[in-house]
Amino acid sequence: MFDLPTYLAAGARWIEDALRRLVPPADTRPATLHAAIHHSLFAGGKRLRPILCAAAAEACGASREVALFPAAAIECLHTYTLIHDDLPCMDNDDLRRGQPTCHVVYGQAIALLAGDALQALAFELATRTPVATVEIIRELATAAGSTGVVGGQVEDIQGERLPPDADRLRYIQQHKTGDLIICACRMGMLAAGAPPTDLAAITDYAAAIGEAFQIADDILNATATPEQLGKAVGTDAAREKTTAVSVYGLAGARQRLHQLVATATAALAPLPGNTQPLAALAQHIATRQS
Amino acid sequence: MFDLPTYLAAGARWIEDALRRLVPPADTRPATLHAAIHHSLFAGGKRLRPILCAAAAEACGASREVALFPAAAIECLHTYTLIHDDLPCMDNDDLRRGQPTCHVVYGQAIALLAGDALQALAFELATRTPVATVEIIRELATAAGSTGVVGGQVEDIQGERLPPDADRLRYIQQHKTGDLIICACRMGMLAAGAPPTDLAAITDYAAAIGEAFQIADDILNATATPEQLGKAVGTDAAREKTTAVSVYGLAGARQRLHQLVATATAALAPLPGNTQPLAALAQHIATRQS
Repeated sequence: MFDLPTYLAAGARWIEDALRRLVPPADTRPATLHAAIHHSLFAGGKRLRPILCAAAAEACGASREVALFPAAAIECLHTYTLIHDDLPCMDNDDLRRGQPTCHVVYGQAIALLAGDALQALAFELATRTPVATVEIIRELATAAGSTGVVGGQVEDIQGERLPPDADRLRYIQQHKTGDLIICACRMGMLAAGAPPTDLAAITDYAAAIGEAFQIADDILNATATPEQLGKAVGTDAAREKTTAVSVYGLAGARQRLHQLVATATAALAPLPGNTQPLAALAQHIATRQS
Repeated sequence: MFDLPTYLAAGARWIEDALRRLVPPADTRPATLHAAIHHSLFAGGKRLRPILCAAAAEACGASREVALFPAAAIECLHTYTLIHDDLPCMDNDDLRRGQPTCHVVYGQAIALLAGDALQALAFELATRTPVATVEIIRELATAAGSTGVVGGQVEDIQGERLPPDADRLRYIQQHKTGDLIICACRMGMLAAGAPPTDLAAITDYAAAIGEAFQIADDILNATATPEQLGKAVGTDAAREKTTAVSVYGLAGARQRLHQLVATATAALAPLPGNTQPLAALAQHIATRQS
C-alpha cells in the first residue's frame, strides 16, 4: 500500500544524498561561499520540486534515477530564489525553515553571490542529464527567466500596497511558484523519454498543483503560527500583498484549492506508469500544515 | 589590410543587433524588469567577450555566425555580473559606462532580479547553439559558478582591507575576469567544431589575455580619469583592494602586461583560420585607454 510520508522521506533522503555528492564541499575555495551555499541548501527543505521531478519520471514508467540531475538542478535553482527573496532589498526575512537566513549568517554580499552561484550550478547539473539534455536545460532556463520565476517575483514586489487584483494574482502564482513546479514535472518526464501526450498531461497536473501550492501558502501565511511554519506569518497582510486570501477571501481560497486538487488528479489518468505518488502529492500540497 | 577599430565596431554592431532580436522587448511583462535589463544590456558596452567568441570561431576557419548564440549568451552573463557587482551590498557603484547603474535607476530589488533573469537568459540562449550545445552550456555554467566568476568575486570582496597577496591576486584575476574570457573563446571554438588541439591553443591564448585584461583594468583604475573610463577611478586604492598595482607596483604590472601579450600571440600559431583579429585583440587589451 502506498504511504506518502514514507515516500516523501525516501525522496528527500535520495535528493539530499545526491546533492551532497554533487555540490562542491563546504571547504572548497572560496570556503565562505561554499559554506553559505551549504547553509541554505541543507537547511531541511521539504524537497518538493525534486520529489515531483522523480515522481513524474515514475508516472511514465521509468526509475527515479533517470531524473536525478534535473531533480538536483531544480532544488539548487529553488534554493537560489529563496536566498535572493530573503535579502533586505526584497522580502527582508531573517528566518527560513526555522533557521537564520543566508544573509543573516554570511552578510548580504555573500548571500547574493551564493544565490548567483546556485543558479549556475543548477545549469551545470542539468547538463549531466543523459536523455533530452538540451530540452531539459531549455525548460529550466525558461522557467527561471524574466517571464518565469523572476517575472513572478517582480510582480509580487510591485503588487505590495496596490489594491488586490485577480489578474496580477494569477500572474504571480503562475510564474513565481507555478513555473518551477511545472518545470520540475516536465523535466522528470523528459528525462524519462516521455512522448508529447504524456508531457501535456503532466503539464496540466503541474499547473493545477502549482496554483494549489501557492494558495495553500497564502492560507498558511494568514492562519498558521510562526512555530508551525518555521518562518514569519501574517507578513502578506502586513505588506498588503496580493494573495489568494486578499483576492478571494479565506473561504473562497479554500474552495479553489479543492477544485485544483480534483483537476490535478484527473489529469494523471492517461499516464502509463505509477501515478499514485503524484496523486497523493496533489492532496498533500493542498492540505499541508507547514 | 586588417583594421582592428573597424573589426571591433562591426563586431559590436553584429552582437547588438542579435541581442535586440533575442532579448524580450523592453515592454514585455513585467515591463519594469525588461526595461532594467535593456538599460544595462544596451548601455554602450565594448562587447569584448562576444567579439572574442566570434574571433575564436574565425580562428579555426568558421564564420562568426556559428558563434552567435554563445556570443549573445556570454554578453548576457557578463552584464548580469556587472549589475550585481554594482549593488550597494557589493561595490556600491553609481556609474557604469558613463551612465547611472541599474539599481540607481530601478532600485535594488529590480536590479537584483534583472541580473538573475539575465543569467537565466544566458543559458536559454546557449541552448540554441546548433553544434556542441551541451559542451558549450557546461563551459558557461562552470565559468559562471562558485569556482568561476562568482568565486573570483567573493575573494575580491574578501581581499579588501587585507595586505596585498600575490596568490589571492592570481585567484581573483583568474576567476573574476579570466574565466569568462576563456569561456568566450572556448565556446566560439566549440561552436565551430574545433578539435581538442585547437581548444588547448585557444585556452592558452585566452588565459594570457584574461590576466592582461585585469592588469590593464587595475592600471587604469590607478592612473586614468573618470571622464576617460566613464566610471569612478582610484577606487581600488581607496578600498585597499588586492590588485596587480598593489602587488607588483605600476612598473611591474606594465612589464607583466607585455609578457602576457607575447604569450597570447605565440599561442595562436597552430590555429588553422584567420588569427589576425585575436592577435590584434591581445595587443588592444593591453594598451586600451578606457
